[in-house]
Amino acid sequence: MANKASKVSETVIRRLPIYHRYLTEIIDKDIERISSSELSRLTGFTASQIRQDLNNFGGFGQQGYGYNAVDLRSQIDKILGMDNTYKTIVVGAGSLGSAVSKYGDFRASGFKIEALFDVNEDLIGKKIDGIEILPYNDMKEYIKENNIDVAIVTVPKQNAMEVINLLMESGIKGIWNFAPIDIHVPIDSKVVVENIRLNDSLLKLSYYLKEKSKED
Amino acid sequence: MANKASKVSETVIRRLPIYHRYLTEIIDKDIERISSSELSRLTGFTASQIRQDLNNFGGFGQQGYGYNAVDLRSQIDKILGMDNTYKTIVVGAGSLGSAVSKYGDFRASGFKIEALFDVNEDLIGKKIDGIEILPYNDMKEYIKENNIDVAIVTVPKQNAMEVINLLMESGIKGIWNFAPIDIHVPIDSKVVVENIRLNDSLLKLSYYLKEKSKED
Repeated sequence: MANKASKVSETVIRRLPIYHRYLTEIIDKDIERISSSELSRLTGFTASQIRQDLNNFGGFGQQGYGYNAVDLRSQIDKILGMDNTYKTIVVGAGSLGSAVSKYGDFRASGFKIEALFDVNEDLIGKKIDGIEILPYNDMKEYIKENNIDVAIVTVPKQNAMEVINLLMESGIKGIWNFAPIDIHVPIDSKVVVENIRLNDSLLKLSYYLKEKSKED
Repeated sequence: MANKASKVSETVIRRLPIYHRYLTEIIDKDIERISSSELSRLTGFTASQIRQDLNNFGGFGQQGYGYNAVDLRSQIDKILGMDNTYKTIVVGAGSLGSAVSKYGDFRASGFKIEALFDVNEDLIGKKIDGIEILPYNDMKEYIKENNIDVAIVTVPKQNAMEVINLLMESGIKGIWNFAPIDIHVPIDSKVVVENIRLNDSLLKLSYYLKEKSKED
């Protein structure tokens, strides 16, 4: 089963959070069952695509009855590892780091923030939502001593590479990176990296705004 | 030319900000010229893919000489509409809205923040980096009177749909959406929407962390 799941393509994995989001909406509306064609209407993927995606993990639907929304979501929770808890730190306690620390959905997903780190002495010792800001120089040791799983990187571009390198050496398992740099992870690395590319997204918006304005 | 550019596929558009990012790194290192094979090594795309992408916009490279990094970046700037200025508001002046307002790269991209809006009376009248927080009830009128182009939505999930609907009615041209909802834009709509899916990204990270842990 572990091996089977490992082979699932990145495209399928990218769609699972989307199913998860819609299932939550459905559950919030007290709807019990949903068919693949209703899921298709909501998500824009074809019904056969949806059935195929969910079959990757063992097919929980029943022909003609659709899926039980709560069951399906809890299966997806398990597939996505949302039943796990990850000890997490935030590197960079500026406005973005502070926003991420307060981000509700984030906390609900099993990532538990243990500490923030910063180089700015004015910030050290202060707290954000009860979580203390510690000196960046102590970070590597802290990660090892406290078995931290995940680091969220919200430092400016010019400090990002140094921070990432230090994290790679520290035995961290995952990095959620907000800095606008590309992280080259060696193939044999055990570190999982997921990037949020704010600037790339903004440039896409800029492009489509320009194109739309030509249509007028 | 306008028509030609309009036909460029979304996959190409998605790669342009990546070229832009690497070109900026190269320019920062005072490197003048770059070949498609060097760009390939940096970005991971094939050299022929890169040449093909850039040919979409008129091919600025010279066989055997590579690209002039500054020229190529400024061409990409133009293609992405980065020479345009967009009058922008931020809806939601909480920690995320405040972080986005302070985000440097964002300001450099031609999006100029004119005001923030919030329902929270304690925030109204306060300033974030010199930009005033105004009452949400005045937003629609403000957009029309000030010809606002773009709204950045950083409100919580439960308020997001209402905010999006109001924005759609207000004549806004673009929405940069951070709320974890899907926006269904009518096909004939003139509004461009670009989403940042923090939660989807986090669930992907969670999945790959789980998969890596199985390998141990």
